[in-house]
Amino acid sequence: MREVVILGVGMTKFGISELTQKEMFVQAALEALTESGLEGRDLEGLFIGNVLGDYEEGQLNIAPFLGHEIGLPTSAPSTRFEGACASATVAVRNAALMVAGGVHDLVLAGGTERTAIMGTPLATKTFAMGSHAEYERWAGITFPGVFAMVAHLYASKYGMPLKELKECMAQVSVKNHYNGARNPLAHFQKEISVEKVLSGPMIADPLQLLDCCPFSDGAAAVVLAAADQFKGQVKKPVTMAGMGQASAGAIIHQKDLTRIKAREASIAAAYRQAGIGPGDVDVCELHDCFTIAEIIASEGLGFFEFGRGAEAARRGDTALTGRIPINPSGGLKSKGHPIGATGAAQVYEIVKQLRGEAGPRQVAGAKIGVVDTLGGDFSTVCNLVLRRN
Amino acid sequence: MREVVILGVGMTKFGISELTQKEMFVQAALEALTESGLEGRDLEGLFIGNVLGDYEEGQLNIAPFLGHEIGLPTSAPSTRFEGACASATVAVRNAALMVAGGVHDLVLAGGTERTAIMGTPLATKTFAMGSHAEYERWAGITFPGVFAMVAHLYASKYGMPLKELKECMAQVSVKNHYNGARNPLAHFQKEISVEKVLSGPMIADPLQLLDCCPFSDGAAAVVLAAADQFKGQVKKPVTMAGMGQASAGAIIHQKDLTRIKAREASIAAAYRQAGIGPGDVDVCELHDCFTIAEIIASEGLGFFEFGRGAEAARRGDTALTGRIPINPSGGLKSKGHPIGATGAAQVYEIVKQLRGEAGPRQVAGAKIGVVDTLGGDFSTVCNLVLRRN
Repeated sequence: MREVVILGVGMTKFGISELTQKEMFVQAALEALTESGLEGRDLEGLFIGNVLGDYEEGQLNIAPFLGHEIGLPTSAPSTRFEGACASATVAVRNAALMVAGGVHDLVLAGGTERTAIMGTPLATKTFAMGSHAEYERWAGITFPGVFAMVAHLYASKYGMPLKELKECMAQVSVKNHYNGARNPLAHFQKEISVEKVLSGPMIADPLQLLDCCPFSDGAAAVVLAAADQFKGQVKKPVTMAGMGQASAGAIIHQKDLTRIKAREASIAAAYRQAGIGPGDVDVCELHDCFTIAEIIASEGLGFFEFGRGAEAARRGDTALTGRIPINPSGGLKSKGHPIGATGAAQVYEIVKQLRGEAGPRQVAGAKIGVVDTLGGDFSTVCNLVLRRN
Repeated sequence: MREVVILGVGMTKFGISELTQKEMFVQAALEALTESGLEGRDLEGLFIGNVLGDYEEGQLNIAPFLGHEIGLPTSAPSTRFEGACASATVAVRNAALMVAGGVHDLVLAGGTERTAIMGTPLATKTFAMGSHAEYERWAGITFPGVFAMVAHLYASKYGMPLKELKECMAQVSVKNHYNGARNPLAHFQKEISVEKVLSGPMIADPLQLLDCCPFSDGAAAVVLAAADQFKGQVKKPVTMAGMGQASAGAIIHQKDLTRIKAREASIAAAYRQAGIGPGDVDVCELHDCFTIAEIIASEGLGFFEFGRGAEAARRGDTALTGRIPINPSGGLKSKGHPIGATGAAQVYEIVKQLRGEAGPRQVAGAKIGVVDTLGGDFSTVCNLVLRRN
């Protein structure tokens, strides 16, 4: 397998947009191409994450239209990937594998999504189609309910009073808002306090409003290339050191909701390929759709022992200056969560961090970064390990 | 790139089903696995085409749930591909590339779709989301309208009276129904006459009812493997000799609707990889969503000169015993069209033909077969060249 290098990245501001999904993606893609010193006609393929373009804008089969807009030649395949919230990470991984396997030398991957148009209540119901239609949703559960159960189970399993766990969860939200306030592309750029989190409206007990990420509009894009041919093209090449993707059934088939088996399989493959362990990671963008989700992800990725992630968050271990800075971008919580674009935006942030271009939210000296994205409740996980050369 | 071999194929009956998309897919996948002498736990990945599972059954992120049902290990990525009607062909191609590029040794690809639940009028409107949301559909056009325009343009460009073209188109339908009547898995297993086609209700002038394929329910699956490790596993190996996938923008951006540029780019790549030309092809399953679509596809794939496909169809050149038998399965017209499963069912038919297992619809001595699938109106085309060893 050949080494894969990231030449350029691009991203729109996340939030509420007047632009269509196509317009947002073009903006992100042209930024990534410009950074790479390339044009659309140079590309050999497009790999795009998009989840609900049909519900949002009446658009299926979006990939070739995006390819046409950014100038891809007709001979270049444009392909849409859908794995719920992990869609763009899956698209980036598949793009990188096509380069690694020698199918393509130069491709663009990314994602775009316009969720805010639905409003939060309808979007919550609609995106719940990422859970199992027969086993889960007929029971009436949506994602806030799933992660509320996770919080209760976590407190119970590890003997932590729920009140204490909630303070740890609130600290995750405070930290991510602190970081997001330093990210000009974040949906919310505003610091908050633990008190504010704990006094917010209850969404799904014990999750309060500020334990939950928003639905956002946005797009992000990444140019990937064969390192042997293109590494000299950019000043600060970042390479794809390891990749993983794994799958599991409905939550009804899982024994312990405090551990996501697909994540453990996926990150193990990514670490193995990169030849590293969690102790080698300098910075991580992970899937904090809810504050408890960040805590269990920080354990599943191996940064903390199982049952220790909550107190680590409260202690500040995951802050910008902590032992393992998590979600310096603000994460899904503060940067925002345009479902099918989220994974590509995580890659964007890690690339900026590894290049030392993250400004006031820079993690000092970061050389190895991890991307973690969860699709559906517990069924799809995709991980990437990036390295500065 | 490594040689890729098809070990086994499976397919449900196409038509109107009481089964869910997952249940249909499991049936097809287990048949393909059984033919291959394998079980789900042996697989390293799942590549699935599905277009409107969200509208049809409220199911996004379907891939990991399918993987779980057929017993894939958690470490195996399960990925959904969507390129409108070409979704399953794109899934099969991506699966084959992962094997060819050395990422996986043994994977399963396929598609599943349950369209009939909507009824034809709603399904027609809903699947029109595969065309461009801003440039095409706001003009009110759906696929029957697009291909009606193609028929008018074809008659005009080649100076053929529309009445004569309609007789040629009717012959396509008669031929595909003849073949479908010999396929126990076909949606319609009933011969029809030219007179019946020409006396049917008008759908989009000049397309009458029997110029149009139905919406069907169904699933199909294919087991793909690295030839060097698995070729000895089955008695009649069929190899993936060539692949292509290409993309184009909305029809508003295309100069001549009688030629599909994405098809020409895609099949050129597939022929080049296989080291063959159209004259070497023994049998072809192509995208006859409408009778005129079969005619222009037979030209775009190089079997006939541009402008000669209509008369070739009338002459019987594409019949089971003709110069280049097209759609021996009955095609989309008679076998049926479960959108996201269609491409995998085309692969199923070509594999059966190349193995000499197609019974009363067998094309004698077929050694090289081509799959052609069109997604959206003219925006995604995927082609595969299969060869009997």
